[in-house]
Amino acid sequence: MQFDRKLQLATDLYQFTMGNVYVQDGKQNEVAVFDVFIRNNPFGGGYTVVAGLEQVIDYINGIRFTKEDTTLLKKNHPEFSQAFLDYLENFKFEGEIYAMPEGSIIFPMEPIIRIKAPLIQAQIVETTILSIVNHQTLIATKASRIIEEARGDMVMEFGLRRAHGTEAGYYGARAAVIGGCAGTSVVETEAMLDRPSMGTMSHSFILSYDTELEAFEKYVKYNPDNATLLVDTYNTLEKGVPNAIKVLKKALAEGGITGHYGIRIDSGDLAYFSIEARKMLDDAGLEEAAIVASSDLDEHLIKDLKSQGAKINSWGVGTKLITAYDCPALGGVYKLSAISGKAKLKVSNDPEKITNPGYKKIFRIYGKSNGMALADLIALEDEKINEQEPLTIFHPVYTWKKRIITDYYIRELLVPIFIDGKCVYQSPTISEIQQHLKDEKDSLWPAFKRMVNPHVYHVDLSQPLWNLKQQLLSEAE
Amino acid sequence: MQFDRKLQLATDLYQFTMGNVYVQDGKQNEVAVFDVFIRNNPFGGGYTVVAGLEQVIDYINGIRFTKEDTTLLKKNHPEFSQAFLDYLENFKFEGEIYAMPEGSIIFPMEPIIRIKAPLIQAQIVETTILSIVNHQTLIATKASRIIEEARGDMVMEFGLRRAHGTEAGYYGARAAVIGGCAGTSVVETEAMLDRPSMGTMSHSFILSYDTELEAFEKYVKYNPDNATLLVDTYNTLEKGVPNAIKVLKKALAEGGITGHYGIRIDSGDLAYFSIEARKMLDDAGLEEAAIVASSDLDEHLIKDLKSQGAKINSWGVGTKLITAYDCPALGGVYKLSAISGKAKLKVSNDPEKITNPGYKKIFRIYGKSNGMALADLIALEDEKINEQEPLTIFHPVYTWKKRIITDYYIRELLVPIFIDGKCVYQSPTISEIQQHLKDEKDSLWPAFKRMVNPHVYHVDLSQPLWNLKQQLLSEAE
Repeated sequence: MQFDRKLQLATDLYQFTMGNVYVQDGKQNEVAVFDVFIRNNPFGGGYTVVAGLEQVIDYINGIRFTKEDTTLLKKNHPEFSQAFLDYLENFKFEGEIYAMPEGSIIFPMEPIIRIKAPLIQAQIVETTILSIVNHQTLIATKASRIIEEARGDMVMEFGLRRAHGTEAGYYGARAAVIGGCAGTSVVETEAMLDRPSMGTMSHSFILSYDTELEAFEKYVKYNPDNATLLVDTYNTLEKGVPNAIKVLKKALAEGGITGHYGIRIDSGDLAYFSIEARKMLDDAGLEEAAIVASSDLDEHLIKDLKSQGAKINSWGVGTKLITAYDCPALGGVYKLSAISGKAKLKVSNDPEKITNPGYKKIFRIYGKSNGMALADLIALEDEKINEQEPLTIFHPVYTWKKRIITDYYIRELLVPIFIDGKCVYQSPTISEIQQHLKDEKDSLWPAFKRMVNPHVYHVDLSQPLWNLKQQLLSEAE
Repeated sequence: MQFDRKLQLATDLYQFTMGNVYVQDGKQNEVAVFDVFIRNNPFGGGYTVVAGLEQVIDYINGIRFTKEDTTLLKKNHPEFSQAFLDYLENFKFEGEIYAMPEGSIIFPMEPIIRIKAPLIQAQIVETTILSIVNHQTLIATKASRIIEEARGDMVMEFGLRRAHGTEAGYYGARAAVIGGCAGTSVVETEAMLDRPSMGTMSHSFILSYDTELEAFEKYVKYNPDNATLLVDTYNTLEKGVPNAIKVLKKALAEGGITGHYGIRIDSGDLAYFSIEARKMLDDAGLEEAAIVASSDLDEHLIKDLKSQGAKINSWGVGTKLITAYDCPALGGVYKLSAISGKAKLKVSNDPEKITNPGYKKIFRIYGKSNGMALADLIALEDEKINEQEPLTIFHPVYTWKKRIITDYYIRELLVPIFIDGKCVYQSPTISEIQQHLKDEKDSLWPAFKRMVNPHVYHVDLSQPLWNLKQQLLSEAE
């Protein structure tokens, strides 16, 4: 584990309250199946990028209850039986977990993590798993949207100071890199991500010198390899850019620059400033100087700036990425789908909140000719698809809407992570996860990736699963 | 420290990049003063509740750089000089920190933390302090707003699963309790807050039994002291409430209930359901049964439900509190206000972004007759106010707007936290912080606390500070 923090108590009390009942009622070992899934894509988008699995694995591998834990619980909760506290002291996760690898594209109602374990164990891990996966998936998805609109420009994550605490900044940075950011300013991520962090200087650096010119000279002197100068402390076009040009030209002439160089604009009209600054840099023969922009950026503003012809080479995004500002919570849930071999669903007056029952898996169906994703099919675990035969799928509500698919191949999306309590999965590197997401997005038609009114990707139920759901619904009343 | 996690690298790279320049340029020991402040109250509100200081103290007390840290930095950043890495290995915070105690009411532009330290040290701690204080202050403020609208009802924090990771849930829960929540569901907070966590059961508990009735019976049997039954798994008014009444009446008759009892409604029309459920409970003689509501609550919805006559006794708030959904980032900044004894300010085209220079303190002025806060005055450190004399204050922009205050007393808001690198402050208990906030809010007229269009509290500059600011502004161009 990255931190020595133990997460066994980073959960809701009701998991223990229920566990206490289960132990005394002799139910703790009934085998339960729970699914983690979302009901909507965040940000009004057409897809979601899953992240956080590596931390879930760390958590499950590390979960133990100490004597200190049970002593505290006993003191605060006299209703907890000794049998339950003993159970906790001997707790060991013995279940099975299947999940979608990080960087996978997911859609609403698809189990992204499936836990099959003794009821009490599956219940105790609920909240912690949700809080890890909801957070990182949210940020990875936001980052992916920003990357889309940056259209190949470099995007850097700069949001730690506005994150929900340092850990949200740390794992949020990881998720942002999974989503496609080239890097992050968070130094603490260097060990985790195995790549250097990024950054330049703040306004206070400039103010700490008597003049902007002196601050620039000193900065370039000690950063010949990455001389990016912040030009908006006093007056961007009147002072900052001319001072930067003076210092960069001199250093270039004297061999004092050995790598990247450029300017950063952090306030004001980024479109206008970047266009004017580009002209000034080019006129001075500094065509190689990059222009970095920061200042409350998100995918909408980046798209807008590009449409205005802004001359920006790379983007530092902070607050709106690290807090997922326009949709700061992902509503991932953890729902019981089977217990003791019996499929279960939650009825609700709101049809959107009715769950899919049973022990399920997911097929993604690709067109053979182009490798593009056509639809996903949620099926029961024992179902098979013969790829040589046409496949008929239908809308789970408007069932007359049928599609017959030929010339396709399928991929199962859930992979084994824990079997009998043992981790059987090796987490990929961050670069591998980035590549996986890239492949996933390449196989998704642009209509699902656009920012506004994306097309709705088809996630259908197999006939046996659909039948099971109808049967349970009709029995429920 | 609560966790063994070391935060020394939980910062932005540019702090080190600048530190590297300062060490080589011989500037690292110039004494700098930085202020942490906000530019706007979040949520369109009229005040902000400060939180996070205890974690800032932990961080400052614990900051050390290990050989492992410098080895990683050296590998990833060849521009870092050996002198700088040596500096880090011998790093020890030697500065002075003044701050407002947690639970204090603060307003825009007021220094809530003031750091005076060798430039490099003051710079290195910037990001981490901001990320702690921005987060906890945001959540404490959101909680305080919710508490206002709950008008004395109990409010519980239930949001961990939607928090930005487990740490945001943990410290967010702390901040929510500071803001006035009676408690939180997060078990991990029990040691920190020295109070039990709270909760009942989930829908899966009900589903794991063959019938709702059986689930209720088992729950009450093992929770005779806190028998709160979740009634919306199947059909709230047709099944859930009647089943709960049946089980609660039987248990009461048999002496199977020894403490609180009631129902929880987690979906649907909370106004209608609670009014109908109240009637059903009362008709059954269960006037003592409490009705707990949860389901995407925030201050707006609570106010609305109350105005509809909802019969709800306590409120479980989750997502919208723990993520501060409608304003998920607090824009607290960290700005240089003096270096080497020279006052500094940041000029900006945007007047709102111009900072206040110098080494400052804050007076809160109270009416002697009623103890109500009249205005705050930001002054320079060496200024004194003679409470026996009338005090003239004026608007910092519309300077002709003057007020002469008599019959007042003052309180200095910044208190010493670190002196010469040593912590001189003992953090109060959470209950003491809650009480401090209560006192602060009691001294604030309702006009500043209302949700919509609150009155703007006066934060003025003293004449010497105003003069200094004008002088620096006129010198800047």
